[in-house]
Amino acid sequence: MSLRFAARMESVPRSFIREILKVTQDSSIISFAGGLPNPDLFPVEAFAEAAARVITEDGAHVLQYATTEGYQPLREWIAARYRDRQGLNVTADDIVITSGSQQGLDLMGKIFLNNGDTVIMESPGYLGAIQAFSMYGPKFVGVPLEDDGPDLDALERAVKDGARLFYAVTSFQNPSGLTYTREKRQAVADILKGTDVIFAEDNPYGELRFRGENVPPLYGLRPENSMLMGSFSKIAAPGFRLGWVATSPEIRQSLVTAKQAADLHTGTVAQRIMYRYLMDNDIDQHIARIRERYGRQGRAMLAAAEAYFPEEVKVTRPEGGMFLWAELPTKRPIMELFDAAIARKVAFVPGKPFYVDGGGDNTMRLNFSNASEEVIDEGMKRLGECIKAHLAGK
Amino acid sequence: MSLRFAARMESVPRSFIREILKVTQDSSIISFAGGLPNPDLFPVEAFAEAAARVITEDGAHVLQYATTEGYQPLREWIAARYRDRQGLNVTADDIVITSGSQQGLDLMGKIFLNNGDTVIMESPGYLGAIQAFSMYGPKFVGVPLEDDGPDLDALERAVKDGARLFYAVTSFQNPSGLTYTREKRQAVADILKGTDVIFAEDNPYGELRFRGENVPPLYGLRPENSMLMGSFSKIAAPGFRLGWVATSPEIRQSLVTAKQAADLHTGTVAQRIMYRYLMDNDIDQHIARIRERYGRQGRAMLAAAEAYFPEEVKVTRPEGGMFLWAELPTKRPIMELFDAAIARKVAFVPGKPFYVDGGGDNTMRLNFSNASEEVIDEGMKRLGECIKAHLAGK
Repeated sequence: MSLRFAARMESVPRSFIREILKVTQDSSIISFAGGLPNPDLFPVEAFAEAAARVITEDGAHVLQYATTEGYQPLREWIAARYRDRQGLNVTADDIVITSGSQQGLDLMGKIFLNNGDTVIMESPGYLGAIQAFSMYGPKFVGVPLEDDGPDLDALERAVKDGARLFYAVTSFQNPSGLTYTREKRQAVADILKGTDVIFAEDNPYGELRFRGENVPPLYGLRPENSMLMGSFSKIAAPGFRLGWVATSPEIRQSLVTAKQAADLHTGTVAQRIMYRYLMDNDIDQHIARIRERYGRQGRAMLAAAEAYFPEEVKVTRPEGGMFLWAELPTKRPIMELFDAAIARKVAFVPGKPFYVDGGGDNTMRLNFSNASEEVIDEGMKRLGECIKAHLAGK
Repeated sequence: MSLRFAARMESVPRSFIREILKVTQDSSIISFAGGLPNPDLFPVEAFAEAAARVITEDGAHVLQYATTEGYQPLREWIAARYRDRQGLNVTADDIVITSGSQQGLDLMGKIFLNNGDTVIMESPGYLGAIQAFSMYGPKFVGVPLEDDGPDLDALERAVKDGARLFYAVTSFQNPSGLTYTREKRQAVADILKGTDVIFAEDNPYGELRFRGENVPPLYGLRPENSMLMGSFSKIAAPGFRLGWVATSPEIRQSLVTAKQAADLHTGTVAQRIMYRYLMDNDIDQHIARIRERYGRQGRAMLAAAEAYFPEEVKVTRPEGGMFLWAELPTKRPIMELFDAAIARKVAFVPGKPFYVDGGGDNTMRLNFSNASEEVIDEGMKRLGECIKAHLAGK
């Protein structure tokens, strides 16, 4: 008797980050490796009250099966926010609640990708998307990410070569922290218009801007054949696993069919608690608090990078989100730096797994949302020393 | 510009049941069409308390991201229950928490099914599994379900023909209400032993026995290359979307990889509330109450079938669960009966969609968990009259 898995399982990259995170479980290590929101900011009491209230008041419905599309008032809240804040033409009918935005990626792969289809990823790109899409056997093409958005020539070539789907995190990207400018958004929309390419815009960090002005999602510039994903994980709490997809009625129908087969529907309890929380509390005030805190933490990390990193190390200057990206002027394997850093009790994520077509050996992702400014300063100091030694070939 | 979906989307059956349920939304209709637990029995206050307590006491963890495998104490609780109640050799490490047991089906399809692989389904079989597996393009083979379990000759033939996976709901099956006897479980295990066939045992209703003696899951008789799925939906509440898979370490590893790509992990909030509920309350007392109620409702439906249905209509005699199955001695399309029944304000689910290889045109599924005995009696009376007219060709 033998155990054989489906062929698709061979193409899935092991979660390098999970492995890294295991190494960094040690509480004496200062970890910039994770991607967790700061739990100090979770509105614990407000959620406890919302949970008790909603179950007590409407238990028979809150605890029962529900529709695949999601809780209607929550869909309405999300759509109204898109209309009011981003000027998007979105109604509640366009929204499907998903089990975290990660599920949106899986469902998208499921409904659109045939084996061998081309998926355009940003280089570097979000690892969770690479993993989700990998299950459907695509061919990945990377488009380099510049400080203001993707390399347009490379994107245009990939689109003309017959890509099926372009996945992008347009604001405060994971892993790079970079944001598409308004101009680049328009240019990308112009490239995509009139093509069959599915555009999948993932925007979990969009509300976490601590510098500069809001830029509306690209989705509004080219809504046809497009999907816009959002999440409550970064603006409220990830433990509910609540995300959503906004899309056209035609795509939504297939999405719902796929979601029904995947998990029937997202937890009613989670959706109802979140909605109650949104009704009884001022989410904007809460988001302002997150922005203020992450802004301080992000500035502390940038200041520390300037103070402690050698000048030749290039770092991104995020206007929001949770991550910063560094590029080293060396071909020495970054795993050697990783090991040295762990020995000095500081951790980061080596950048290579974020590239679908090689490269990135000299890059790293640094998370600033989950450590105080003092801890960030100390960790960056240690990391700076390790980088200097690494560049000196020691 | 056109919108093309992946080829797999063409093979997914539309959810006939969802369509049926829409027809039966009308509250003046007595519906035996659904598959909902009785909400009167939801432990509303206990869950409200558990939710408030667990978020207040441990919000920073409850609201945060967590591991893909699931909350460790909950995994331990499930494993201990299998050991103590069913004599299964299962540890916490063997358990993966899933977003409802429906997700177990999807992940199973994902990790095991290549396009064209053969999946053995019971005839009739669970529609949610047909939908989930359809996404991976298998060839379905049906094995007739007899009163005591599957037709062993047909199962053996299908296994020898090189099937990849056999999916079975061994106790109080959805849709038939039938249960594999101890003897048939052993016979099935003997057929599977030494083969590569993945055995997927789904047991969401196993604890809802209201007649006869507990029979342990088949899983224990042939654990190699097998998975046993369970759920809190029927013993506590479905609104949390909490299920699980018990399996071997080798399968578990692939399952976790696939689950990570699908939704990172099942909601921490839901898992923690459920665990708190289990610690602070007597779930056995609660299950006893469900059993008692469903037993009364099931007996009421059976008694009504005997009183109002023509003798030639064959009905199953469930020992637990939520469903009863009826077979009519006619070739007249059952949709005509369905329409006539709706006109008389009573609804059922036509049985045809539960068959992967045709047949079942003269069958229907009747749910008894979600109506009082009086309502059941009235509905069955109306349905009996419709059936008589249908058989008389009127």
